[in-house]
Amino acid sequence: MAINSTATPLIDAPRGLAGVVVTETEIGDVRGREGFYHYRQYSAVELAQARGFEDVWHLLVHGTLPDAERRAAFTAETAALRRLPEEVRVALPAIAAASRVSGPLSGLRTALSLLGSARGLRPVYDIDGDRRRADTVAVCAAVPTLLTALYRLGQGLDPVEPREDLPYAANYLYMLKGAEPEPRRARAVEQYLISTIDHGFNASTFTARVIASTGADAAACLTGAVGALSGPLHGGAPSRALDTLDAIGTPDRIDPWIRERVLAGDRIMGFGHAIYRTEDPRSRMLREIALGFGGPRVDFAVEVERRVEAILAELKPGRELHTNVEFYAGVVMELCGLPREMFTPTFAAARVVGWSANILEQAADSKIIRPVARYVGPRPPVAVPAAL
Amino acid sequence: MAINSTATPLIDAPRGLAGVVVTETEIGDVRGREGFYHYRQYSAVELAQARGFEDVWHLLVHGTLPDAERRAAFTAETAALRRLPEEVRVALPAIAAASRVSGPLSGLRTALSLLGSARGLRPVYDIDGDRRRADTVAVCAAVPTLLTALYRLGQGLDPVEPREDLPYAANYLYMLKGAEPEPRRARAVEQYLISTIDHGFNASTFTARVIASTGADAAACLTGAVGALSGPLHGGAPSRALDTLDAIGTPDRIDPWIRERVLAGDRIMGFGHAIYRTEDPRSRMLREIALGFGGPRVDFAVEVERRVEAILAELKPGRELHTNVEFYAGVVMELCGLPREMFTPTFAAARVVGWSANILEQAADSKIIRPVARYVGPRPPVAVPAAL
Repeated sequence: MAINSTATPLIDAPRGLAGVVVTETEIGDVRGREGFYHYRQYSAVELAQARGFEDVWHLLVHGTLPDAERRAAFTAETAALRRLPEEVRVALPAIAAASRVSGPLSGLRTALSLLGSARGLRPVYDIDGDRRRADTVAVCAAVPTLLTALYRLGQGLDPVEPREDLPYAANYLYMLKGAEPEPRRARAVEQYLISTIDHGFNASTFTARVIASTGADAAACLTGAVGALSGPLHGGAPSRALDTLDAIGTPDRIDPWIRERVLAGDRIMGFGHAIYRTEDPRSRMLREIALGFGGPRVDFAVEVERRVEAILAELKPGRELHTNVEFYAGVVMELCGLPREMFTPTFAAARVVGWSANILEQAADSKIIRPVARYVGPRPPVAVPAAL
Repeated sequence: MAINSTATPLIDAPRGLAGVVVTETEIGDVRGREGFYHYRQYSAVELAQARGFEDVWHLLVHGTLPDAERRAAFTAETAALRRLPEEVRVALPAIAAASRVSGPLSGLRTALSLLGSARGLRPVYDIDGDRRRADTVAVCAAVPTLLTALYRLGQGLDPVEPREDLPYAANYLYMLKGAEPEPRRARAVEQYLISTIDHGFNASTFTARVIASTGADAAACLTGAVGALSGPLHGGAPSRALDTLDAIGTPDRIDPWIRERVLAGDRIMGFGHAIYRTEDPRSRMLREIALGFGGPRVDFAVEVERRVEAILAELKPGRELHTNVEFYAGVVMELCGLPREMFTPTFAAARVVGWSANILEQAADSKIIRPVARYVGPRPPVAVPAAL
């Protein structure tokens, strides 16, 4: 029994708001049938191949690729914001200790919220566009510092101070390991990060926009988005694909292992995507990067991919199941020395930039996002019984 | 130019998803034209008048009012969870220091996220209904401890340890002041808290449900909801109505002050509501509570209400503008000794229970909430220009 609480006519939407257009966007989109996705008017993969992380970050939050002068200014602006305020620094050991069980994303959620407070972020509706943009940059720039500090504290190591002279991705690896990364590893991680900044509309992006639509500050929006990203239905867990490689173990075990799983109806982690009907364009790029490194692990991954596709084509004809971004992302991150528990946090270190672009776009609107619920419980009022 | 990224037909929704039914609910609803709102099948105001906070909390998260045995068990369960884990306790001074500028809601956002990690909360989709409920209770039970500790640390005072022998509201006031509250004050705050647990669908409740729909843990959902609540468009700032009383100052200044504001087209804080076309039922209940206390401040508030309604009826005939929940909520909280900067955090100390009920209801579904965006930017792909 529906009770309409207002004069507004109610509109019944599909479950989960599937296919319901909640906003227009100029940030980007995914064309699943073409195997193509883009940031603004550019192919995301082409950006990852041609540009550095800071250039694409600038494209997302300022709307344009920077010229040399703007690049220098934006790089300096972001690099200077890598150092943590003292209130954040002193709380990190407690945050690392508290998130031992619940994991690094829950640690990031807390640290990012704290950083937003320490930076004095104000509600997006109380400030102008330049200030909003600066607020998102202030939070995003410090995400690698937060993540690596929490990771190292969890390992019983001291955090490594950020360096301002390294690009975003290289500085991330530097803080993680305490040593300057090989250039090809820094570049591989940078390309992965660029390819991960945004990918159409998803639940964490939507969360960031709902919170932004109330006018809350950028850290409130980003904290909520990190929370949504941590949900098992959100997707994006590159470590699971590596777990598949480990479970198979050796090339001779590929066929029986895969056949058994497919016949049992299990999903093979790292394969299949909700939107792409072709190869995932991120997967193609990351495979090329992995092949550039070479070695037995890469050969094994390529062989697993080849056999899975062949067996799926045989046992599930007509289904287009290819590797998704998780498969080679895991391989590449492993090649670059990232520990497995940092795979999803590394994803978050890029995605915060995509969320930021969405927050800025939403904040430029002034309409709260507030759908309705239909009450279907017993009809009130029933008299409240006396307390027993 | 719209580019449809999937095979799903797109549905154009009103801006902000206004009137779009996103879910069915058995938690409650608001009937704006009748001046009535309810939790499950009971009038919320009647619950506030007849029951204690723990009873209504039980109703929200378990679905039923407790009998004597269940009340005793639930009260003991929640009271034991008021004490903070050590990792949270040690981080509170840094959180209080960081949120000096951004305010207590940003401090709560961080502390609540940290508490969720310290309690080892797991994704709602990985646990059963009992465990989910227990997780929400573990977080909500400690919210007054977090809020009062952060407030006192901000004032240079030591936090006060919770007591297990006091009801939720009385213990909240006890920890705030370090002294057991007068029973009528504890009861007034308890009635306010009960009346504030839920109020139909709103942006923070929706945020909690979107995050829950990814399967994330309860703290991820509640942290996001606190973020949404902090947005200026969300509403619910009872301190603003008191600011109006202060700005008017004395009874003789009521008429000129109000006339000037109304003629200038300004909104009078504490008056008017988006949904109610009658008196706000919360306002009516809180006025009665205030009148029970009596005194010059209450007389002044009643006089302001009387004159504002008269002047609005004269200058804006046909508009039904009455006091909303903010007006007498501010008066009652002031009478009970709550400092003004704790008004919205006190609201949050009740609303976490309503969010929890929504998280539990959403978690019982298994469909992610994920609408779509329509890309309207320049058509890609445009070749990426060489870096300058």
